[in-house]
Amino acid sequence: MPDHSRPPDKRVTIYDVALAAAVSPSTVSRAFSRPSRVNSETAERIRQVAERLGYRTNPLARALTTARTHMIALVIADITNPVYAEIVRGAQEAAIGDEYTTVLIDAQESDRLERAAIERTMSTVDGIVLASSRMSDSAIRMFAKQRPVVVLNRAIADVPCVVTDNPRGARRAAEHLGELGHDHITYVAGPEASWPNGIRWRSLLEAGMELEIKVRQIGPYSPTIEGGERAAEELCARPATAVLAFNDQMAIGLIRGLSRKGVNVPGDVSIVGFDNILAADIVTPGLTTVAAPFYAAGSAAARHLLTMIEGAPGHTGRPMVLPVRLVVRQSTAARNLNPGRVRPPWVRQRPATQPAAHLP
Amino acid sequence: MPDHSRPPDKRVTIYDVALAAAVSPSTVSRAFSRPSRVNSETAERIRQVAERLGYRTNPLARALTTARTHMIALVIADITNPVYAEIVRGAQEAAIGDEYTTVLIDAQESDRLERAAIERTMSTVDGIVLASSRMSDSAIRMFAKQRPVVVLNRAIADVPCVVTDNPRGARRAAEHLGELGHDHITYVAGPEASWPNGIRWRSLLEAGMELEIKVRQIGPYSPTIEGGERAAEELCARPATAVLAFNDQMAIGLIRGLSRKGVNVPGDVSIVGFDNILAADIVTPGLTTVAAPFYAAGSAAARHLLTMIEGAPGHTGRPMVLPVRLVVRQSTAARNLNPGRVRPPWVRQRPATQPAAHLP
Repeated sequence: MPDHSRPPDKRVTIYDVALAAAVSPSTVSRAFSRPSRVNSETAERIRQVAERLGYRTNPLARALTTARTHMIALVIADITNPVYAEIVRGAQEAAIGDEYTTVLIDAQESDRLERAAIERTMSTVDGIVLASSRMSDSAIRMFAKQRPVVVLNRAIADVPCVVTDNPRGARRAAEHLGELGHDHITYVAGPEASWPNGIRWRSLLEAGMELEIKVRQIGPYSPTIEGGERAAEELCARPATAVLAFNDQMAIGLIRGLSRKGVNVPGDVSIVGFDNILAADIVTPGLTTVAAPFYAAGSAAARHLLTMIEGAPGHTGRPMVLPVRLVVRQSTAARNLNPGRVRPPWVRQRPATQPAAHLP
Repeated sequence: MPDHSRPPDKRVTIYDVALAAAVSPSTVSRAFSRPSRVNSETAERIRQVAERLGYRTNPLARALTTARTHMIALVIADITNPVYAEIVRGAQEAAIGDEYTTVLIDAQESDRLERAAIERTMSTVDGIVLASSRMSDSAIRMFAKQRPVVVLNRAIADVPCVVTDNPRGARRAAEHLGELGHDHITYVAGPEASWPNGIRWRSLLEAGMELEIKVRQIGPYSPTIEGGERAAEELCARPATAVLAFNDQMAIGLIRGLSRKGVNVPGDVSIVGFDNILAADIVTPGLTTVAAPFYAAGSAAARHLLTMIEGAPGHTGRPMVLPVRLVVRQSTAARNLNPGRVRPPWVRQRPATQPAAHLP
């Protein structure tokens, strides 16, 4: 029985039904578009409420629902970084639960390739998760106007975002190194177009200020093992006792590059990474690193995207922030306070006329 | 001027033009569909030859060419295995050169998910590379009838295939272990649905026959580090002095699992992997392994697919075989010929009533 108390010119929306039935708008959407995905009692209650309120599903929207491809795109910055395998698996798990297929796009750290691939794919997918996008904010907003978009590993106004707690990660790394007696930390930077790179550096700067630890930055380097090996060469020219690398791959490259030059990790230099990829546990010494829940992040981003595809509004207030933790392994140790007795060979090799200070 | 000597009922095909112009059929196809991708002199010569022979491009085919999306799909068995990152990069490099976008599908080692994802994606792509497909031969042939398909890491009749030289890889591993004095090799098997798993085992059997080395198989285990760690437990119950693992991830899991139980690699057990992923060089001891050119394999598969999309016939004779090589690192060593003096602890722990033989 339609509710005639409602003014006839005000169309009943999915949000009215959701409010009256005490469920989320996406559940209402599902009760009509994919009833098999909703508890049958809930679906029946929603149908009754909808009938009472005089709710009519939009026939055009329903046609689109029927014709849709049930695919989402997940764009990742670099398939060779194992972090993305975890994000992919988390997103896929969420998408499969809703019978969506996930197509992946590897942007190869290139904003140009990323944009071209999205333009080519967009018409065939229902929505897009952008993980570590290297595109400009305006390009992302343009795509978000055409399809539901959730951004991962990056905060951008007006678009729903999922990030890990980078500020806390950088602070925990700085606290750990400070407790080990290090009073200087060198940050080895990753790609300039990477949002986490910027926030990790700024957070380290802030933490250093509060903890009375001096910080400096070298780089940028490629966020790969090779990039870390190249950074090791610069580090030998401008020595440090404690390093925070943009990510684990660079940290592993640093360990390899420094070891090859006879520098002992952690005896001469303590190294901390970011991400806690599997190789952090395989490398010798085991890498101390900031662990982030990338599987959960991928899953959260995909789940939010699916509710947007089902008609719910995107959460565009603050980003959803997932917690991080410091995993302490063997690559960090107390600062050697007696460098005169056990001076690392790469310091010994420097000409006597140069200052002995480790940092500018 | 049309060549009237040709019987009018025999339609001039792209192959006639290719033969007369001394170019490949795909170049002829390109000269008409995407002239910017062909050298201008060559394109002009092809047009003249085509006119002389009375060649007419198929208007329907041309319409399809114009409407096509310029996307290929690359289906991989497991995004968490770094082998596929190399394959993806190789395929993408080839596809980008022809202005194609590659969408990736991670089948998560499931033939069901693989099939569902392909069915959902197929109408939007011009062709498909199946890397390490877990589907049945008949399912693959069915898709190959609907779209150009190239199969990678698997040989299947009537469909173009690119494989690495698994028989030679298994033989090189057996020769290396034989030279080190090992007279038994245990193969730690990967997924039963994996074509390389079957051929690696059969090739090891054959090599063992010729080299007078006894072989046995344990497993199957998941082709992951965790799978290798579980295999280490079975290996402790049924000891061996030499192991060939299905892949590097399992070999790394074996090293970790055995080390945790006090078994020395390579002192007590020599271990050889397959693939030469980056972690093989990071793990301690460094992993001896069969290196295969996965980047080149991805590139070759994509390039062949693109020529098929441009109209050339698929190469369905023998598979294209890419060479492999053995990379010797520290995980293999001479067999300990004096087990009475330096007996590994896991042998010492066995009850005295059991036979001392290492292998059934």
